[in-house]
Amino acid sequence: MIKAGIIGATGYAGSELVRILTNHPNAEITTITSQSYKSQNYGDIYENFRHIEKICEEENIEDMAENLDVIFLALPHGVASKKVNEKILEKTKIIDLGADFRLQNINVYESWYKTKHEAKNILPEAVYGLCEINREKIKGKRIIANPGCYTTCSILSLYPLVKEKMIDINTIIIDAKSGVTGAGRGLSLGTHYDEVNESTKAYKIASHRHTPEIEEQLSYAANEKIILSFTPHLIPMNRGILVTCYASLNNNYNYSDIKSAYKKYYENEYFIRLTKEGVFPETKWVKGSNFCDIGFTIDKRTNRVIITGAIDNLYKGAAGQAVQNMNILFGLDEKEGLSQPAAFPI
Amino acid sequence: MIKAGIIGATGYAGSELVRILTNHPNAEITTITSQSYKSQNYGDIYENFRHIEKICEEENIEDMAENLDVIFLALPHGVASKKVNEKILEKTKIIDLGADFRLQNINVYESWYKTKHEAKNILPEAVYGLCEINREKIKGKRIIANPGCYTTCSILSLYPLVKEKMIDINTIIIDAKSGVTGAGRGLSLGTHYDEVNESTKAYKIASHRHTPEIEEQLSYAANEKIILSFTPHLIPMNRGILVTCYASLNNNYNYSDIKSAYKKYYENEYFIRLTKEGVFPETKWVKGSNFCDIGFTIDKRTNRVIITGAIDNLYKGAAGQAVQNMNILFGLDEKEGLSQPAAFPI
Amino acid sequence: MIKAGIIGATGYAGSELVRILTNHPNAEITTITSQSYKSQNYGDIYENFRHIEKICEEENIEDMAENLDVIFLALPHGVASKKVNEKILEKTKIIDLGADFRLQNINVYESWYKTKHEAKNILPEAVYGLCEINREKIKGKRIIANPGCYTTCSILSLYPLVKEKMIDINTIIIDAKSGVTGAGRGLSLGTHYDEVNESTKAYKIASHRHTPEIEEQLSYAANEKIILSFTPHLIPMNRGILVTCYASLNNNYNYSDIKSAYKKYYENEYFIRLTKEGVFPETKWVKGSNFCDIGFTIDKRTNRVIITGAIDNLYKGAAGQAVQNMNILFGLDEKEGLSQPAAFPI
Amino acid sequence: MIKAGIIGATGYAGSELVRILTNHPNAEITTITSQSYKSQNYGDIYENFRHIEKICEEENIEDMAENLDVIFLALPHGVASKKVNEKILEKTKIIDLGADFRLQNINVYESWYKTKHEAKNILPEAVYGLCEINREKIKGKRIIANPGCYTTCSILSLYPLVKEKMIDINTIIIDAKSGVTGAGRGLSLGTHYDEVNESTKAYKIASHRHTPEIEEQLSYAANEKIILSFTPHLIPMNRGILVTCYASLNNNYNYSDIKSAYKKYYENEYFIRLTKEGVFPETKWVKGSNFCDIGFTIDKRTNRVIITGAIDNLYKGAAGQAVQNMNILFGLDEKEGLSQPAAFPI
Repeated sequence: MIKAGIIGATGYAGSELVRILTNHPNAEITTITSQSYKSQNYGDIYENFRHIEKICEEENIEDMAENLDVIFLALPHGVASKKVNEKILEKTKIIDLGADFRLQNINVYESWYKTKHEAKNILPEAVYGLCEINREKIKGKRIIANPGCYTTCSILSLYPLVKEKMIDINTIIIDAKSGVTGAGRGLSLGTHYDEVNESTKAYKIASHRHTPEIEEQLSYAANEKIILSFTPHLIPMNRGILVTCYASLNNNYNYSDIKSAYKKYYENEYFIRLTKEGVFPETKWVKGSNFCDIGFTIDKRTNRVIITGAIDNLYKGAAGQAVQNMNILFGLDEKEGLSQPAAFPI
Repeated sequence: MIKAGIIGATGYAGSELVRILTNHPNAEITTITSQSYKSQNYGDIYENFRHIEKICEEENIEDMAENLDVIFLALPHGVASKKVNEKILEKTKIIDLGADFRLQNINVYESWYKTKHEAKNILPEAVYGLCEINREKIKGKRIIANPGCYTTCSILSLYPLVKEKMIDINTIIIDAKSGVTGAGRGLSLGTHYDEVNESTKAYKIASHRHTPEIEEQLSYAANEKIILSFTPHLIPMNRGILVTCYASLNNNYNYSDIKSAYKKYYENEYFIRLTKEGVFPETKWVKGSNFCDIGFTIDKRTNRVIITGAIDNLYKGAAGQAVQNMNILFGLDEKEGLSQPAAFPI
Repeated sequence: MIKAGIIGATGYAGSELVRILTNHPNAEITTITSQSYKSQNYGDIYENFRHIEKICEEENIEDMAENLDVIFLALPHGVASKKVNEKILEKTKIIDLGADFRLQNINVYESWYKTKHEAKNILPEAVYGLCEINREKIKGKRIIANPGCYTTCSILSLYPLVKEKMIDINTIIIDAKSGVTGAGRGLSLGTHYDEVNESTKAYKIASHRHTPEIEEQLSYAANEKIILSFTPHLIPMNRGILVTCYASLNNNYNYSDIKSAYKKYYENEYFIRLTKEGVFPETKWVKGSNFCDIGFTIDKRTNRVIITGAIDNLYKGAAGQAVQNMNILFGLDEKEGLSQPAAFPI
Repeated sequence: MIKAGIIGATGYAGSELVRILTNHPNAEITTITSQSYKSQNYGDIYENFRHIEKICEEENIEDMAENLDVIFLALPHGVASKKVNEKILEKTKIIDLGADFRLQNINVYESWYKTKHEAKNILPEAVYGLCEINREKIKGKRIIANPGCYTTCSILSLYPLVKEKMIDINTIIIDAKSGVTGAGRGLSLGTHYDEVNESTKAYKIASHRHTPEIEEQLSYAANEKIILSFTPHLIPMNRGILVTCYASLNNNYNYSDIKSAYKKYYENEYFIRLTKEGVFPETKWVKGSNFCDIGFTIDKRTNRVIITGAIDNLYKGAAGQAVQNMNILFGLDEKEGLSQPAAFPI
């Protein structure tokens, strides 16, 4: 049994991790920590766990490293990079759900996050844990930067066409829609029920921090620098991300050309499902699962391809993918503990 | 491996059965049938199953009985009783999610359902599959009447107090609230999105068919005839049932007296969780799980007890309990395939 | 033109008042005050008013009394009673949307609100502003206690049957369901979007402060002391209250007997609409309006009557009724500015 | 008083028309017709009108033309063009909420709607009733084609920048999000509550019929042919449209350049509200009102402008604009009956 710890177990992503690992056949949660709910029973905070006893401890990453095989970090940006160091990595594996180790370009990190990076020496070792793309690089590593939610969905939706140079990389626009759990459990007027319910808005237009993350990874795929537009929207639902991606085609491609590109990269990917022609992803079909559904249409009139991708932001976009990374790190079947389809309607 | 079939697999309860059984370690779905979607691939109807291939067959219960260990029926009332007969029961086990075998009193059935009962000879053998109450009676049986959703939640909430004669059975009032999946996947103006969303109503006041079902089972517990008021309400959410039960206390009981009664019957029940004093069940804590959460308050001013119970109507209120019944019938651990907590927030 | 001021204009009830008065043909808003948003433009706080300029002032009730015909108070309990005094009432009329002047019995107030009452000398003069019941008493008064939301709906639903002594007053149970705006605009985990959405719960069972308010008013109607059970529930929708009331009938009444009682009191009430037999109120039909819809069924099996009533909690349950009170106080047509039907679907 | 009739009064747009006209100070509804609810009382179909008596008549447009000043048509496409002819127009004014008279290019109409146009002789006379753009052309006309919901919001959001040639018209992408009322009151699995709730999807990608309508009107503004991408999405809420528009800037414009363009066209438009810098429209601020809120950001990194616009699809996107057109046609103040702000939270 893999001994796992979770630092920051009482946010939404942390709670989803607890849930997934509780049912994982090869892992057990040894330690959970929480700053806000120290010494409280987890089942009193998340009452879906009412039937279990599990106390939130004070965080002591050194002790945890000593005793655990893997530590998941679910922390605000800027915090993880202060906690992780060489001594920790010598003793345990780190899967960081936050942003600190996602961007290899430190200038880009510091300019978008408006803070100094505190673990520059560790950063080069961190692998961007987008499993379907970086599987081979993940194996054997000590620290994984688990991708952001919008990022996971955006990159997976665009990767084959960027890689195959089928789209004009100067024309990429990603219009993303997210459920409200993306904003976390912290209180704000913007997540107060009556302010969110029955309304929709765009936010952080041209300034959301997942933008450079998408750009960095797609630039690796393109082997040239990509600048794109990314606009997130808030949708009155708990979970789910849908991205609608637009790009001009580099050629007069037809449906099956594009389909072939997706098949080339994803045909054997259990968690990526291509929809049939004329069928488009809906977030309900992936909610509560680790799947990413992708569909596309060619708009002959404008010679653009329009791709839509859907994931569960807390699952494939956070905790599910983190466990998928754990599975890869420990040589398990990648689907272990993650293979169930979405519950519907839920 | 238990070979299971589902007749009526494309309704919401049927689809939840497919999902649960797909992940069950000791069972496999051999045959699914559907009248409306004959010959279609299940993953084209419920796209959460997009990654699997499974064709909806035409129903042939005789053939299925020949080849299967258990058949689940998820059919409109009046249909199951026409399909099940002695010859079927000699070959396989039946778990009926519909109403036909729930009421032992045929007159009551025929008066509330306004139809003739077509399997009167089978009826006496059918056991009311409320697992926590009738576990011993279920074992070894050939046909199980899986309880209704409102019924499961109402009976479990009231059973210990009725059994222990702590409440005045002439004063029982059940005010129930259900998510919209309770109404099924059939189209109607009453389940059209914009008609349901952002509104609440009572319906079938004093005339809902789960009333006699609750009364019959509680009457067995009381050992005398119980007549009660049951009022269902439609709540703008997908899943979940909350029942709020009112009854006058037969004595000057305090909190711990009532608590003891619940503990007496439920202390060792994995799927029944009593909330702490001052904490009340919420449907979100049981959604997507087989748990039933129960809490209560004593209103000293009126000497009433007010009990609230919460379940997932499609899970503990339908498919989950059906599989729990299967587990009992086949001598498995009752929690097999059913033990995960609710996902939250979902 | 009636010159009106609103103290506490930036809560949900205050904002609904602003909206209603803005369109009122005989009133104009002269002053609005806000503690939290002092000196800010109202259209920056409630952007539906983006097109108007209106600054939130610091509260000075003495100045306001000097210059205004009526002041609406939308404040937390305990605050209004400190602000209102004889000198204020000599100069202006007060319509208080809070709880301080609703209960004539000071002991009951102090025991349920756990605070000293600070305006005992004013209290006897305050009229409980449930317009349809107390219209004649309201006329000419200086201070009106605008009823609570649950209270308005509960009393209107039960009043005729209590007054006509058709129900056993010892058996009254009110099971109430409210949208989330009832909890106001203040932040709390309990009103965080993902915690409320897709879930239902009961809260403050046997302890909600609207209970004594309902009891006091119904006791006046019965001419004897009434103790009843009141259970509020939170429903995932913005607005609307539905109450489901249960009581044993004092006699073998039929539908038309009960109907006659409602007609006797409400036939000429514009804002009270009785539903047809077999039709039950839904909150969507009153949302955004001042109407109260009432329907009922007789349960022959238990000889109970089950009454459901629906209002918009922010409108008839707060701001709309406050303006209705203003209309009465100033001798206007009671419907002025309030007559529009619910928007639907909204 | 303007005598108005509504043909097709029982759809959602028709019902919103009934509601608006009921409160209009200068108009009265003389006749309403419905094919599905013939001879039924309107208050039994839309129970928010429970307090009024109004029977749905069988449609007879000739009789209506004889007696009414204006007839609103709220009909499926292809039906209006069969009903309207020269004889009708000699007697009354027509405001058509459907698509038949919106596209001046008959080939485009017939190719997108896959049907023959049945009133080619009338078409040239029809004015596209986007009030803020075509106000002068509307005055004195006999037939108005009321714009589509997506169209209204899209054109208003882009018009100034197209007209002023500030954006590259070959790069326009409109990503639109709509509440479910946009799909009407007809039953379908796609609008069944549990299928829509808590999910998001794109639909009719590159094939929605509002596309050519937007293109035709923006082409007039640009004075050259515009082809663009338009993608509608379904959002789990009753009402509201948000459009997010992307286009490359033709020059190195800054915020105030773009702001000036919007001010030039909209400064005196009551129903168009520009948001402040850094503030983006949300559908809740316009719901139930005739306002269109518009905001924008310049993305310096890509030299794109991103514009978001919000309307209520049933109000400014249908019935409200239809009444605005009526006000213009009859020389009334354009705001008459339409000036109230959004209710919030509702």
